Amino acid sequence: MSRYILPRGFLVNGTHCGIKRFNKDLGIIYSAAPCKAAGMFTKNKIKAAPLLVAKEILAKGEPIHAVIVNSGNANCCAGRVGTGDAKKMIMGVTANLDLKFNNVLVSSTGVIGKRLPVDLIVAAIPKLVKRLSERAVMSFAKAILTTDKKRKVETTRFLIGSHEVIITGVCKGSGMIHPNMATMLCFIMTDANIDKDALKLALRRVTDDTFNNIAIDNDMSTNDTVFILANGRAGNEPIKKGTKEFDLFVKHLHGIALELCREVIRDGEGATKLIHVRVKGAKTEKDAKKVARMIADSLLVKTSVHGGDPNWGRVAASVGSSMADGIRYGKIEIYLDRVCMFKNGKFTNPAANRVATIYKRGTVDILVNLNAGTKSAFMFTCDLSKRYVEINAHYMT
Amino acid sequence: MSRYILPRGFLVNGTHCGIKRFNKDLGIIYSAAPCKAAGMFTKNKIKAAPLLVAKEILAKGEPIHAVIVNSGNANCCAGRVGTGDAKKMIMGVTANLDLKFNNVLVSSTGVIGKRLPVDLIVAAIPKLVKRLSERAVMSFAKAILTTDKKRKVETTRFLIGSHEVIITGVCKGSGMIHPNMATMLCFIMTDANIDKDALKLALRRVTDDTFNNIAIDNDMSTNDTVFILANGRAGNEPIKKGTKEFDLFVKHLHGIALELCREVIRDGEGATKLIHVRVKGAKTEKDAKKVARMIADSLLVKTSVHGGDPNWGRVAASVGSSMADGIRYGKIEIYLDRVCMFKNGKFTNPAANRVATIYKRGTVDILVNLNAGTKSAFMFTCDLSKRYVEINAHYMT
Repeated sequence: MSRYILPRGFLVNGTHCGIKRFNKDLGIIYSAAPCKAAGMFTKNKIKAAPLLVAKEILAKGEPIHAVIVNSGNANCCAGRVGTGDAKKMIMGVTANLDLKFNNVLVSSTGVIGKRLPVDLIVAAIPKLVKRLSERAVMSFAKAILTTDKKRKVETTRFLIGSHEVIITGVCKGSGMIHPNMATMLCFIMTDANIDKDALKLALRRVTDDTFNNIAIDNDMSTNDTVFILANGRAGNEPIKKGTKEFDLFVKHLHGIALELCREVIRDGEGATKLIHVRVKGAKTEKDAKKVARMIADSLLVKTSVHGGDPNWGRVAASVGSSMADGIRYGKIEIYLDRVCMFKNGKFTNPAANRVATIYKRGTVDILVNLNAGTKSAFMFTCDLSKRYVEINAHYMT
Repeated sequence: MSRYILPRGFLVNGTHCGIKRFNKDLGIIYSAAPCKAAGMFTKNKIKAAPLLVAKEILAKGEPIHAVIVNSGNANCCAGRVGTGDAKKMIMGVTANLDLKFNNVLVSSTGVIGKRLPVDLIVAAIPKLVKRLSERAVMSFAKAILTTDKKRKVETTRFLIGSHEVIITGVCKGSGMIHPNMATMLCFIMTDANIDKDALKLALRRVTDDTFNNIAIDNDMSTNDTVFILANGRAGNEPIKKGTKEFDLFVKHLHGIALELCREVIRDGEGATKLIHVRVKGAKTEKDAKKVARMIADSLLVKTSVHGGDPNWGRVAASVGSSMADGIRYGKIEIYLDRVCMFKNGKFTNPAANRVATIYKRGTVDILVNLNAGTKSAFMFTCDLSKRYVEINAHYMT
């Protein structure tokens, strides 16, 4: 547990307010020191109410001191009352922590289309706030989960000059994970002292290369959100864009985000294997991404990985159907768990003992070289199991 | 069985040549009268060898007299020998039927990446040809199947002037069905007398509106093919583009194709329900298609249909993630099996006895009205079951 320390000056908590029958369903992050903040949101055109409210607050640019999050209800498609309910969550916090409305961010995850039981939330905030603690990370991490089996927390510490900086991320994932972040919430706290523009850029850059590259199913949620809060308590000189300190910060933020992505995928609904899809030798990065996503979205590839069946033909079919430029049949190479299966337009017929190792480990590697250029991309996804169907056939009822 | 008659002058047969262990795996269509022919092929950039060969032959424009088809091996990604093997299949036919190379089309379906056992095929052609019959439709229909459970044959008869015209289609489907036809083979025979340009146009128009609107999984095959052969034996005046006879022909061809689509979806791997996704009120047809495909491809929608769970929120999330233009939250209406679930930006809370009927029948209807224009689109798909995962986890091994 000691791995999961919080950056200086952050307190968190999680509790049960009654949206879910038994499990924790309400969490809070608080920093007495004012935070610079940035957010990334789903690209789904239907956005849940809390996203709209949080975006507005971020746009005001006032210091952020707290984030209030509930699970069990997404506060999405619940009519016009939705934004009012999201605002009531914030007002519940301001009433108990002596903050102003624009100092608090809000987030929700869970079922779509049911009105949020906001009174339960507001009633639980006093006790939630009372037990704010620097040691309650796992409690907060638990409170934001839906069908996840495991809590997802990562911490890193590094030096900026002579000042130790800490970054801690807490994440929830599971179903509906898709490029552009589908039902994923991630809250990243840091005590780094960093320029607001630099913080925004760092978050965008890291998100594009991590959270936007994961897929469990091909659905995109209405609620995906990544927030980062930086309270400056590490005491370093402010990090500015284009400096080596900025690069160092991005590198560590990237490490945290990538590890959280892996945890999200491993804990994907019904997932038994993490699939790392890599595409190289593409003409453009866009082409590389197209191919990687097509493979990662292929039910036939995902089920063959699940069954331990080294069916490279399904990978080939996905490559061809990606509509990316520069795909030439005779040039493509396909490697499954580093065994070359397809080259020079045909099956390589590798030794049986090598084929026998494919798709047998917990992490599976699919590499496609298009031999058409120098660009590359990757995707994380998971296998498709009967358990996925079980979980999702009766979610609402 | 008497429903499934062949148009005048067509003979067919199916046999077992040894690609599969037990089931029939080789089929032939033959017309002594010369046929006009047209074909539609997968848009996958990796195309199987028989498609490349058949496209070339169609381009020559000589009369077509026969189609040879095998199942069990797709003759795809098997190296340079692939086209040679496809040509050997044709030569096996010409050697036994006194035809020229450019009179015969070829088609394959099955596993990708293994060399076609073409000698088995060639050796079986004499007996295949010997038993050509106007009564062997079901035998031919059986010989082209892979994981399909049922044979798929449809026949229609109608009058052009005083001449009765017959159209008969035979189809195979199952996994990897996606817009742009993924592993689907369809062979349509007609005794109509029709202009070649008119035949081509009719096939393209009908395919765009039927076979290109079905999806079982989001994979696109390397082998999809629709052939139509018209031998003119009905004796009608040649049908030309832009006439009412042409419209009549298209209408009946459309009916056959649509019915075959339904059969393909119903027999989709692991499918227990046919899902009819309809989108109306879109700004453009392209937008309507985007939304319909997003819903039809959503694993979360497909699993909820499977579980009989009226989770309209997943439909809403798919609509939003489609990136189509003109999507305005407050304007969207969602109907599940004709029960309005979402309107004016919120859940309509319909009576429990009405909700209880949703997703319970063999055919499920999902209708989205975007209220943004006048264009519409539809997709056929099926639910996602544990059986799909079972079938596809161990296909190759």
